[in-house]
Amino acid sequence: MSEVEGPDRYVVGVDFGTLSGRALVVRVRDGAEVGTAVHEYRHGVIETVLPDGGPSLPPDWALQDPDDYRDVLREAVPAALAAAGVDPTAVIGIGTDFTACTVLPTLADGTPLCELPELRRRPHAWVKLWKHHAAQPQADRINALAHERGEPWIGRYGGKISAEWQFAKGLQMLAEDPEVYRRAERFVEAADWIVWELCGAETRNACTAGYKGIRQDGRYPSADYLAALDPGFTDFVAKLDGPLLPLGARAGVLGARAAAWTGLPEGIAVAVGNVDAHVTAAAAQALRPGRLVAIMGTSTCHVLNGTHPAEVPGMCGVVDGGISPGAWGYEAGQSGVGDIFGWFVRHGAPAGLDSHERLTELAAAQPVGAHGLVALDWWNGNRSLLVNHDLSGLVVGLTLATRPPDVYRALLEATAYGTRMIVEAFAEAGVPVDDLVVAGGLTSNRLLMQIYADVTDRPLGIIGSAQGPALGSAIHAAVAAGAYPTVHEASAAMGRVDEGVYRPIPENVRAYDALYAEYRALHDHFGRGANDVMLRLRAIRNAAVDAAAERTASTLEVVG
Amino acid sequence: MSEVEGPDRYVVGVDFGTLSGRALVVRVRDGAEVGTAVHEYRHGVIETVLPDGGPSLPPDWALQDPDDYRDVLREAVPAALAAAGVDPTAVIGIGTDFTACTVLPTLADGTPLCELPELRRRPHAWVKLWKHHAAQPQADRINALAHERGEPWIGRYGGKISAEWQFAKGLQMLAEDPEVYRRAERFVEAADWIVWELCGAETRNACTAGYKGIRQDGRYPSADYLAALDPGFTDFVAKLDGPLLPLGARAGVLGARAAAWTGLPEGIAVAVGNVDAHVTAAAAQALRPGRLVAIMGTSTCHVLNGTHPAEVPGMCGVVDGGISPGAWGYEAGQSGVGDIFGWFVRHGAPAGLDSHERLTELAAAQPVGAHGLVALDWWNGNRSLLVNHDLSGLVVGLTLATRPPDVYRALLEATAYGTRMIVEAFAEAGVPVDDLVVAGGLTSNRLLMQIYADVTDRPLGIIGSAQGPALGSAIHAAVAAGAYPTVHEASAAMGRVDEGVYRPIPENVRAYDALYAEYRALHDHFGRGANDVMLRLRAIRNAAVDAAAERTASTLEVVG
Repeated sequence: MSEVEGPDRYVVGVDFGTLSGRALVVRVRDGAEVGTAVHEYRHGVIETVLPDGGPSLPPDWALQDPDDYRDVLREAVPAALAAAGVDPTAVIGIGTDFTACTVLPTLADGTPLCELPELRRRPHAWVKLWKHHAAQPQADRINALAHERGEPWIGRYGGKISAEWQFAKGLQMLAEDPEVYRRAERFVEAADWIVWELCGAETRNACTAGYKGIRQDGRYPSADYLAALDPGFTDFVAKLDGPLLPLGARAGVLGARAAAWTGLPEGIAVAVGNVDAHVTAAAAQALRPGRLVAIMGTSTCHVLNGTHPAEVPGMCGVVDGGISPGAWGYEAGQSGVGDIFGWFVRHGAPAGLDSHERLTELAAAQPVGAHGLVALDWWNGNRSLLVNHDLSGLVVGLTLATRPPDVYRALLEATAYGTRMIVEAFAEAGVPVDDLVVAGGLTSNRLLMQIYADVTDRPLGIIGSAQGPALGSAIHAAVAAGAYPTVHEASAAMGRVDEGVYRPIPENVRAYDALYAEYRALHDHFGRGANDVMLRLRAIRNAAVDAAAERTASTLEVVG
Repeated sequence: MSEVEGPDRYVVGVDFGTLSGRALVVRVRDGAEVGTAVHEYRHGVIETVLPDGGPSLPPDWALQDPDDYRDVLREAVPAALAAAGVDPTAVIGIGTDFTACTVLPTLADGTPLCELPELRRRPHAWVKLWKHHAAQPQADRINALAHERGEPWIGRYGGKISAEWQFAKGLQMLAEDPEVYRRAERFVEAADWIVWELCGAETRNACTAGYKGIRQDGRYPSADYLAALDPGFTDFVAKLDGPLLPLGARAGVLGARAAAWTGLPEGIAVAVGNVDAHVTAAAAQALRPGRLVAIMGTSTCHVLNGTHPAEVPGMCGVVDGGISPGAWGYEAGQSGVGDIFGWFVRHGAPAGLDSHERLTELAAAQPVGAHGLVALDWWNGNRSLLVNHDLSGLVVGLTLATRPPDVYRALLEATAYGTRMIVEAFAEAGVPVDDLVVAGGLTSNRLLMQIYADVTDRPLGIIGSAQGPALGSAIHAAVAAGAYPTVHEASAAMGRVDEGVYRPIPENVRAYDALYAEYRALHDHFGRGANDVMLRLRAIRNAAVDAAAERTASTLEVVG
């Protein structure tokens, strides 16, 4: 490889997460991670009140301050360079990845509307974070109308557009603050906005345009459809559409302002924007069709390349070039994974057993099936095949002999069954899954990893980096800088995976087949309408809590 | 009432429990409890090895030493008299109650076979405690044959004879130790044996003969039926049959030996034997048809008088005079109640919340339905309508926001739903339940009591004594001694109940109707064959544990 000759060159990957951003300095020739730094967002997630005041935010809102993102460039990038001891002139490119769909309204020049003094106290002028969930009514309307009209794109999203995505958030803006909607000359993913900040040119990346922006087969939804949603929404695509670039492309070069922020040389390559989960596939050498990447943390995101488009029930989406150019990228997810294990340790385990380490140790000593339990892993709803946030968790098989490690193990297993449901849905739709590569914080739990290999009956590799997204962004920076001709080649040289670390144990595979059959029967019974007890319990709960709040309010009035 | 005149007279009630016996001295005219003492059995429950050695006991065995019962007479009765400061000559009678079916083989003179030196190391020669569960295969055979032959008595037991009862335990003895079976000239409830010890005369009480001995309409099962079970079993009824006496009758008078043990006067009345739950009805002034007594502890036993016999699905039994002469006594049960709450406190609650008091306090602050949960209370199987020990517990509705008091409250409610299932089964069979009276240790939990009133929509009274069974035995002693003409009159004078302490709150009743509908749907789905996942999980668990034990054993062999 030619790039090995001469002095070492470096790239910088920057991963913008929910609460902080991380910069990572990476050697181009082999992906060695030589320095890193993290910067926490000053305003974190804005859920109740805006920084300069204004109306208090309703439930389910989640905003961010775009200037917090600039601070990551100002603080974390120089700090990572310093930690690496790398001369900035040896850096040839910068790449970024972001949470998504995290989206903001701007002027035509990219100025965030929330930075205009007259709009600073208007909630809709701010960045809507991925987990802003207040646009559900709009998403419901979008979905109903799409099915009613037989829109061709709806099948590419498992039949459902999420309330988290661009069209739902945009429609909410129009409905609730038409003036901000009108002032928004551009409506842009934070993934693309940060690139705009770096290179001064607006671009749109193929990943978020496809997964979060309903861009399919070169088109956004039709003006007819938008007008039917709301006549005022007809111009929405005009706010979205921009120069669309494939992943790994060069969006432009680093401008003087961003060079001053970062300490990097002006004029180096800036990669097109990207998403945290999707860049991880490159970091894990998992771009080959049939290799499913599971990024496992509080929740799990699955990304998988396929050779052709297929409609898979409940998947988040399939996008041409959505993970890497030249393949159809599939995305799926599980809304509660590490969150559920953490919940159990905090709220379900007695003193002395309230640690993941201790529970795992005891759970690992059991033969498969010895606890007699099956759980449905829907503590945070289901965003896999069922796509229903109002579903809830279930445990069956409890006896007086059940002990905390039994329940803990059943919860680990339940999330593995959830992954198997997804793997089987892909396989049934003609998108094969040959093996799994796992990234994220949960890779350290060896029992959990073995359970996933046994339950899915597939070999399971582990990403070789603790900073998968930032490494993935650096890989894309190297491609944008021309150090490698394609993301695939850069991934092969710079990515890292330990292949097949966990292999299915035939005896366990057989035992889990029987338990998975039970999971699947419960999944379908409680998730597909035979018994909607979970939805009714949720409604009863909400009504009881609301009624109690009203009673308290009226009591306060009387007392006041 | 004539008995008020003259100096106060007293009776002694002795309650033989699972681990200890309690004596209570009670004033005849008003039921005042003037002294009590407890004696713990020296051998407790014998589950692994006999006191003098012999083969180790298989799983599910539970034996006792009859001499431990005599110790209660020797120790607790004199201690209670001393504590009362009552002159023994003022005592006019003694009554007893026992766990049931607790049963032993004896010679014709009442000598327990386990006290014969040559049989002392033979497990079947000992007392089989109620919770000896090793006769399930025999019970299965008894039930299958009864249904096959259309035996008329099987409907009186909800369609199922329990493995705990006389015929199953007797048939196990015949199958496994025919010599002990042959030597057993009598096969007698401990309830009747202790009376034999007191007065020197063998009697049989109507309660255990009916509920535990399949005596219906004056007959035991036919010789034909017994021969079909096993030709060697044809003589079983001959070992059981004896002078049958109604509850409250005088079995005889205190003999010299027992007078010496107890310090009571020779010649005073000895009441016929009785059962702990059933005597409690008299203590709680709950002999009126339509008043359900729930004795709530680790499990719950329900007793209820009715005016006529009816077949109620899943009830334990209906017996003419089984609770008090002149009424049809119904018995039902829930196999896990306080046991489940205790399990949660020990194994499901984190530090700081691991007490009934704290969990109850927090759970009581919630509006009905606010936790969004429903549980099936089958941690210890179901011995109510479903009569299946292999069913298990379930919780549905869990979310990341669920907290321990939520689950605790859901468990309290689940047992209340279980009681409502029983109440409705009685009502549907034409046996009305107008109100409830609760006895036992759980009466102190006021939240639990209010939940039971709300869920069943019936007023709920509380027994006025902490020693319900012993007081009930004392009431029967007073009748046996002639101080009152009937148990009903003695109960009215000496029993105590706080009527309608908890009244249904209409708003809660409505809210619980919706939740109970969910419980009922889950109950039928998982309990009546639509999804036998619980039974399969139990089988998987047992197989996994057995296989692991075999592997360990063969490893030890190899190592050895």
